Amino acid sequence: MKLYDGGRAPNPRRVRVFLAEKRIEIPLVPVDMGAMQHRGPEVTTRNPLQRLPVLELDDGTVLTESVAICRYFEELHPEPALFGRAALGKAQVEMWQRRMELNLLFCVAQAFRHIHPAMKDWEVPQIPEWGEANKPKALAFLKLLDDELEGREYVAGDEFSIADITGLIAIDFMRPARIALPEELRHVGRWYQAVSSRPSAAA
Amino acid sequence: MKLYDGGRAPNPRRVRVFLAEKRIEIPLVPVDMGAMQHRGPEVTTRNPLQRLPVLELDDGTVLTESVAICRYFEELHPEPALFGRAALGKAQVEMWQRRMELNLLFCVAQAFRHIHPAMKDWEVPQIPEWGEANKPKALAFLKLLDDELEGREYVAGDEFSIADITGLIAIDFMRPARIALPEELRHVGRWYQAVSSRPSAAA
Repeated sequence: MKLYDGGRAPNPRRVRVFLAEKRIEIPLVPVDMGAMQHRGPEVTTRNPLQRLPVLELDDGTVLTESVAICRYFEELHPEPALFGRAALGKAQVEMWQRRMELNLLFCVAQAFRHIHPAMKDWEVPQIPEWGEANKPKALAFLKLLDDELEGREYVAGDEFSIADITGLIAIDFMRPARIALPEELRHVGRWYQAVSSRPSAAA
Repeated sequence: MKLYDGGRAPNPRRVRVFLAEKRIEIPLVPVDMGAMQHRGPEVTTRNPLQRLPVLELDDGTVLTESVAICRYFEELHPEPALFGRAALGKAQVEMWQRRMELNLLFCVAQAFRHIHPAMKDWEVPQIPEWGEANKPKALAFLKLLDDELEGREYVAGDEFSIADITGLIAIDFMRPARIALPEELRHVGRWYQAVSSRPSAAA
């Protein structure tokens, strides 16, 4: 199998961090998103949505969507469990993975795509007002997350999970989106320090 | 356990359809979202994000996020499998569930929330330009879906899955969002007819 990778973009990194946590190595096919290669035929024939990453299996079967690719590897290599354990644990990880994605990563991405001048050809039409509207949404969720992290080590409980990976990616994405992480969110700060110190964060 | 339910809103219905497919009956606690009861203390203490549905277990544990609630029931009652079978099947269902959600349901919801006058107090600020920008996105994805459905019965393959439920919810949500389903999308039309004829669609 091989993974069509998009370098520094958030979703390709999300899958690489997941694979690093699993200690799985698979061949990467670099795609230069800055040069819009993800809209070229190599990616488009595999994913008509023209998004990365794309996993291609040896028989040509294609999987897209970061979380779906991660779940495929979770099924093949269950340990360490990054999608939770048992019915309730799995549901809680999914709940937090979705909360981190829909209320944080998504908002940060919208702020970036609708405001940053470099995204002019990516997001058509760019609507700066919508980008700005997402910044307070992201910050409000971070306050809620801070309250939650006062009582536990990781986003979804006592074990590191894919919800932490999505969170790490989202917080790092705040820099190019020009949203500052408020210093008073001490528990988020402690957690972010911990997850970004893991070797997988370098992936 | 009990499910705090939001009536006609898309996500509460998504979970009810899922439960109907599983033939699982659990007590519902009706919450009047039209009267903004989802922002009242009964919901807020259980879900600070003030969204429905919310599942509360007998020990007081709370699960939110529709897909996480559905996965909890999938783990407890594996048949009929609505999240796919085996590693690849599960990944393919997750891929399509996410595609349906992020490229269709989400776009329809944005069009509704940012344009419909009744949503003025729900979505602050309402940005009609952003609502309008989502309509062609939803239609472009439906064209892609039509091409896919030419070759198979259901969204994620030959078996009905949660991806079909998300799709049903999204298409029905197009009516209040005032997006017409193009008649030339014959395969989408055939699939929509089939999924909305299932008894679960009445849930």
